[in-house]
Amino acid sequence: MNNLGKIVKDLGEKGLIERVKDFCAKDTVGDDAAVVDLSPGQSLVVTTDLLVEGVHFSDRTTSPFDVGWRAATANLSDLAAMGAFPIGITVGLSLPGEVALDWVDELYRGLNDCLANYNTKILGGDICYSPVITVAINAFGQVFPNRVISRNNARPGDAIVVTGYHGNSRAGLELLLHPNNITKDFPQSDRENLIAAHQRPIPRFDILEHLWQVTDLPRVAGMDSSDGLADALVQICRASKVGATIDLRAIPILPALSNIFSHQQALQYALYGGEDFELVLCLPPENARDLVQLLGPNAAKIGRITKGENVELIDSKKIYPQQILSLDRGFQHF
Amino acid sequence: MNNLGKIVKDLGEKGLIERVKDFCAKDTVGDDAAVVDLSPGQSLVVTTDLLVEGVHFSDRTTSPFDVGWRAATANLSDLAAMGAFPIGITVGLSLPGEVALDWVDELYRGLNDCLANYNTKILGGDICYSPVITVAINAFGQVFPNRVISRNNARPGDAIVVTGYHGNSRAGLELLLHPNNITKDFPQSDRENLIAAHQRPIPRFDILEHLWQVTDLPRVAGMDSSDGLADALVQICRASKVGATIDLRAIPILPALSNIFSHQQALQYALYGGEDFELVLCLPPENARDLVQLLGPNAAKIGRITKGENVELIDSKKIYPQQILSLDRGFQHF
Repeated sequence: MNNLGKIVKDLGEKGLIERVKDFCAKDTVGDDAAVVDLSPGQSLVVTTDLLVEGVHFSDRTTSPFDVGWRAATANLSDLAAMGAFPIGITVGLSLPGEVALDWVDELYRGLNDCLANYNTKILGGDICYSPVITVAINAFGQVFPNRVISRNNARPGDAIVVTGYHGNSRAGLELLLHPNNITKDFPQSDRENLIAAHQRPIPRFDILEHLWQVTDLPRVAGMDSSDGLADALVQICRASKVGATIDLRAIPILPALSNIFSHQQALQYALYGGEDFELVLCLPPENARDLVQLLGPNAAKIGRITKGENVELIDSKKIYPQQILSLDRGFQHF
Repeated sequence: MNNLGKIVKDLGEKGLIERVKDFCAKDTVGDDAAVVDLSPGQSLVVTTDLLVEGVHFSDRTTSPFDVGWRAATANLSDLAAMGAFPIGITVGLSLPGEVALDWVDELYRGLNDCLANYNTKILGGDICYSPVITVAINAFGQVFPNRVISRNNARPGDAIVVTGYHGNSRAGLELLLHPNNITKDFPQSDRENLIAAHQRPIPRFDILEHLWQVTDLPRVAGMDSSDGLADALVQICRASKVGATIDLRAIPILPALSNIFSHQQALQYALYGGEDFELVLCLPPENARDLVQLLGPNAAKIGRITKGENVELIDSKKIYPQQILSLDRGFQHF
């Protein structure tokens, strides 16, 4: 496909749909709807995500390839958070006629490159005109009904496990947005790692196999940390009608993060930054211990579920004062 | 819910999501994704549709209730066109903070009122800020694999059946947009019927049971006529690598349509107007005859599939000249 500076308007709506079919699974596109099979005994899992230009992405920090990659990860991560493995996605794309065809190709390439790691494809979608680029993704997965991970299943006494580092994505965004604000010298490799965490996040399907290895009779609550670790903790506690105590010192933070920023700043990014796409899981302490061991050094038990209704943040080093987690810092549009 | 002139910004993103949950199926919302079960042996059918304010709807011709109703019908109709019955939909809504909460409530009410006729619910979705209102719907259905209706399954000799009147929706839009252009007197009931055809279209799931009644071993090609009857004919012929001969006089047109407009104008609306959401089906002549009989007087055999590659329009009354169907009149954005 040689685009030579062509724009969407040059192809028209039907032309663009024809072109985009090349990025979709061969056997599902071309009818009014796509037909796909689930494995016997599994339930369908569905999640939706909207991305709007200027709100969720901008050319300044995100290439169209990365818009696609991140959109795919955000949706796949929601499936992983339910204990589900992916079947496919649909893509609704509305955009102005002046958008370069290269932009469109790169978006779909980013989506497909991420999906390919999980043997997953684009099953179809819709394309239409809009004054602002909007990407609407639906992801489909399947899960055995007794392996669904839901938010409302945490019980007092459960250990709370996070599956990896938090704060990296927000730090990577900071390095992209305000590179001159950071006066410290630090290795180029740290910069690249943090920016990659923001631009090419990874959904944690690898967790699921470990998880079912450590629990005979699975009773696991959880969600992903896409809206921030703090948000995930509050959502799980609200849905399960429980409280939690979190040790700030136990939250896995990349050492480079505390070096480049202050430790306090790194902690803020870890709690409120979002888009780390790790899983936050609540399960019986003995299962939690085994799981952390299987997941390796970046995973950690960060606290436990309590009978209360608040999420308390404590500092086992007694430097930060004890506090109740508030979501006032959370980011809301409108 | 008393909105008292409140707007979206008054609630914020999370507040709006909380509020909209009331419109969703109780047991599927509140996690990262919705979990639903399919009936054993059936395949999943998925379709996506985007609606953009100012492109697909405007306050001038469409209330938010009708935006919701029409979006639901458009997506359900795609399921019916595949031979599938609905399971549920997801709704992605992006909108400015200044939109009235009443507008949002009415949108979801319109969606739900349409879905309720088919015992179907909203399974979840996403809401976010955007400078322009965009509604992204995914509809899910299920179908027995040997009952899938696809576009590429028409064979020379098949009869082409349409399941009802064409042109009514476009005529209803005309009455809404340019009421003063029509100088003729005609009954208020005709006006109401045509406007209802535009504002409250109905997906034809009722067809499916009749269809499987007349075909032992179902081999049916087809799609819906949402983008116009002409478009459906061309799409089916292209996908099946066949041609078709259509008798213009056989296309079911509401008598009032030819009275209010000219017959020629009515025919244009029928072929190119779109949004009638009838099914266009190709099947062996004997099955077609039985089907039309079951469906009643608004359904008709309008032609047959040929070995050629063109869709020929003929006039059995020999007034209109024979012509090859062209989609140049079709409506494309960008």
